[in-house]
Amino acid sequence: MATSTPTEHNMGATPSFDMVLFGGTGDLAMRKLLPALYQAHQSGTLHPAGRIVALGRGALTLDDYLAQVRTQSGPHLKADFSSPVWTAFAARVTYLKLDAAHPADFDALAELLGRGGERVTVCYLATAPSLFAGICAQLARVGLNHPDVRVVLEKPLGHDLDSSDAINAAVAQSFAESQLYRIDHYLGKESVQNLMAMRFGNVLFEPLWRREWVDNVQITIAEDLGVEGRGEFYDKTGALRDMVQNHLLQLLCMVAMEPPASLQADAIRDEKLKVLQALKPFTESDVATRTVRGQYRAGAIDGKPVAGYLQEPDIDPASRTETFVAIKAEVVNWRWAGVPFFLRTGKRLQERLAEIVINFRAVPLSLFGGPVGLQGANRLVIRLQPDESISLHFLAKEPGDGMRLHPTQLDLDFESTAQKRRADAYERLLLDVIRGQLGLFMRRDELTAAWRWVEPILDCWERNGEAPKTYTAGTWGPAASSALLSRDGASWHEEL
Amino acid sequence: MATSTPTEHNMGATPSFDMVLFGGTGDLAMRKLLPALYQAHQSGTLHPAGRIVALGRGALTLDDYLAQVRTQSGPHLKADFSSPVWTAFAARVTYLKLDAAHPADFDALAELLGRGGERVTVCYLATAPSLFAGICAQLARVGLNHPDVRVVLEKPLGHDLDSSDAINAAVAQSFAESQLYRIDHYLGKESVQNLMAMRFGNVLFEPLWRREWVDNVQITIAEDLGVEGRGEFYDKTGALRDMVQNHLLQLLCMVAMEPPASLQADAIRDEKLKVLQALKPFTESDVATRTVRGQYRAGAIDGKPVAGYLQEPDIDPASRTETFVAIKAEVVNWRWAGVPFFLRTGKRLQERLAEIVINFRAVPLSLFGGPVGLQGANRLVIRLQPDESISLHFLAKEPGDGMRLHPTQLDLDFESTAQKRRADAYERLLLDVIRGQLGLFMRRDELTAAWRWVEPILDCWERNGEAPKTYTAGTWGPAASSALLSRDGASWHEEL
Repeated sequence: MATSTPTEHNMGATPSFDMVLFGGTGDLAMRKLLPALYQAHQSGTLHPAGRIVALGRGALTLDDYLAQVRTQSGPHLKADFSSPVWTAFAARVTYLKLDAAHPADFDALAELLGRGGERVTVCYLATAPSLFAGICAQLARVGLNHPDVRVVLEKPLGHDLDSSDAINAAVAQSFAESQLYRIDHYLGKESVQNLMAMRFGNVLFEPLWRREWVDNVQITIAEDLGVEGRGEFYDKTGALRDMVQNHLLQLLCMVAMEPPASLQADAIRDEKLKVLQALKPFTESDVATRTVRGQYRAGAIDGKPVAGYLQEPDIDPASRTETFVAIKAEVVNWRWAGVPFFLRTGKRLQERLAEIVINFRAVPLSLFGGPVGLQGANRLVIRLQPDESISLHFLAKEPGDGMRLHPTQLDLDFESTAQKRRADAYERLLLDVIRGQLGLFMRRDELTAAWRWVEPILDCWERNGEAPKTYTAGTWGPAASSALLSRDGASWHEEL
Repeated sequence: MATSTPTEHNMGATPSFDMVLFGGTGDLAMRKLLPALYQAHQSGTLHPAGRIVALGRGALTLDDYLAQVRTQSGPHLKADFSSPVWTAFAARVTYLKLDAAHPADFDALAELLGRGGERVTVCYLATAPSLFAGICAQLARVGLNHPDVRVVLEKPLGHDLDSSDAINAAVAQSFAESQLYRIDHYLGKESVQNLMAMRFGNVLFEPLWRREWVDNVQITIAEDLGVEGRGEFYDKTGALRDMVQNHLLQLLCMVAMEPPASLQADAIRDEKLKVLQALKPFTESDVATRTVRGQYRAGAIDGKPVAGYLQEPDIDPASRTETFVAIKAEVVNWRWAGVPFFLRTGKRLQERLAEIVINFRAVPLSLFGGPVGLQGANRLVIRLQPDESISLHFLAKEPGDGMRLHPTQLDLDFESTAQKRRADAYERLLLDVIRGQLGLFMRRDELTAAWRWVEPILDCWERNGEAPKTYTAGTWGPAASSALLSRDGASWHEEL
């Protein structure tokens, strides 16, 4: 029986495995998955007998495939392709031609994999979600749904509640929920993991972590890129579906969740689900006052002119798809009721930045002079991108004679303090899958709850037929985004 | 009217002043007061017309006196005696022969000082406390108790409640309480000031700062020196009177006090008084179980042999005076009831160290493996000596794959972060006196409350006639000191 028991520490070597990459020649495999596996290989974490089975529609030889890997993964790998480490890694790789539409290809896959009693089989579906149901059915047909098989599902898992349910229901016909790993790579970030460690490994944050002391929470995932060749997909999707429904809500859960009773996957996921279920539903008037939709027009990023959204390839010139969204959410429970959770994401913003900011309340009186209610003097900033760090901001005494306060910052900088190499998010998550640890993966009911909360916003936007507010590429989005916060006496972190 | 209004910020130049140093040729003046005044002069904080009037029993010329200053203060001054800065400082100094027993000398002093309408007169009594009453009476007789005169009183202010009351009552015959500055240089330390700034300038610490989250508080003032020529005084005094009654209890007040409604001196001192009054009184059995007396025997400091206390000069070879004391105190109010405040001070300990440690409770359950109830994982350490710093200790995630916690430390290091030169404790306190800021000085009722709490311990020790426990010089005191904490499941900070 190869399924490893979830333990509290998942350090050390993995069990033996076959990592089957559907979409093995695709962008995600080349840019993220193979580099992550290579890092894990290099650090000695992968079981020596662990294999990587790359699947693709092309009839490539292994050499062809490896050449492609060297070219396409190369820039992300930092590997010396003549080193023994690389040679040993390459020896793990097998390439198999597989067309999801050809059932016979699955028989060949099953034959290749066999059913070694002591191996975990991970099927990573780095393909279009429209293929998920078919692939899962075929895997089941050829017996590749036995208990040691785990399936990793990449987003987008549907376009709305119904389509998401349809995918999940189809997959569930072949696999138990405990075999399904719905991945959100933001949850694998060192800083997000550390947020959990800091919250639940110390008492210092618990009394502060509540409505009495938190003024507002801000979660931003900003991209400076535009749609980058994904125009056709993006124009049907928009920022709310593409980023908020999954990544931003997952990060919100990590901030807002109650301490779980254990690190067992379902103990964590039950707490996250409770947060999603406690999100205050949006009424029509809430959508008008608490959401901001934006769409970028031409502007400049880093001083270079960039096109507007409507001028991008594959975009309907009359598109009303939002490339920016800001939302004032609320988690209505005893811990958080009344505390605004400001969510924001967008393309072609001023910089690439992902961060969570916990803004604590101002002191009730200003003993040391200066304005009362100075916003943001006390805050915890968890940076996910471009660098990862956690910093605590507070006021300390200015050195010297007198009693004047000045802002001070205590930093936990993972890059510089790490004696050990820190794992990339995909690496951590892939290792978790091999080890059978579901804690960082989304359960079906979480997905449903997230869609339930998001859908009324989508519906309302569609009904009212308003165009999104435009913003110049290279800015922080439409002015309405700042106004959304100023109504609560708050400002986005970069405006402080 | 020269009395400056207390303001919240006391930065900037002082009002004009005469700083009269009683005991101007003594150790304190040479080692601390003149260097502090020189630093303030050098940084431009002193009013240009500010004068320093040094008093001594010898008939010295000004040149003699300045030569003595250069020799004796020199090592503490870091001054270039040929520089214009030094010349300008020396020009502030006047020397006057004054014998406290010669009333006529006070008339000469009054004549020298005159009564300039716009000058503050500070009389710093760096003399034996037995002279305080007489000096104050003479000052009053010659009119030097007008509202612009302030008197600084150095410890020890009495030997017990009665003698302390007697000194305070005598001084009060000539001066109003608002003219009296009872100095405790520990309160002038940058780190102690910063403790106040951090507590009351931020919301981050307030919810943690209470019995629900604090396991214990430790306050240590450890000296590696022995009695150093003060044998005669020390043998009559002991560690409890010399250090606990004043310095340690004052630091305890800074930790335990409620937020004051303002930084007005009496608002702060009212809160400190409430803490002293809330100290749980010691019964006879408490003294047996909650106090530890020690006396050093011969040992080694830094590898060099040192004599035992009973072999020191001017010490009664049968002395039962304690050179070490550890006490478990309790502040019985809503915030602190049940939280041990462990106080400790001693001579000939392992190192020179003054620190306040706030040990927070352990997490209620250990999600990440490792022992539950790991003591000291969460703590705030405020260092006063030898260096000044504040550091917050907590657990963070070990970088890399897995979820293991490791201790991390966030440091506020004043020496390295200070862009501005930080003021020495005496410098800050002298400037406060010149500016008329009483906040960091002890009010008479605080002194009384401190003695009220300390006296039953002294009485009980005297009654039971037990000898103090001996400890080897260069250690951390008698074993009973560790045992005092272990009964509460705690350990001294350095034993963690």
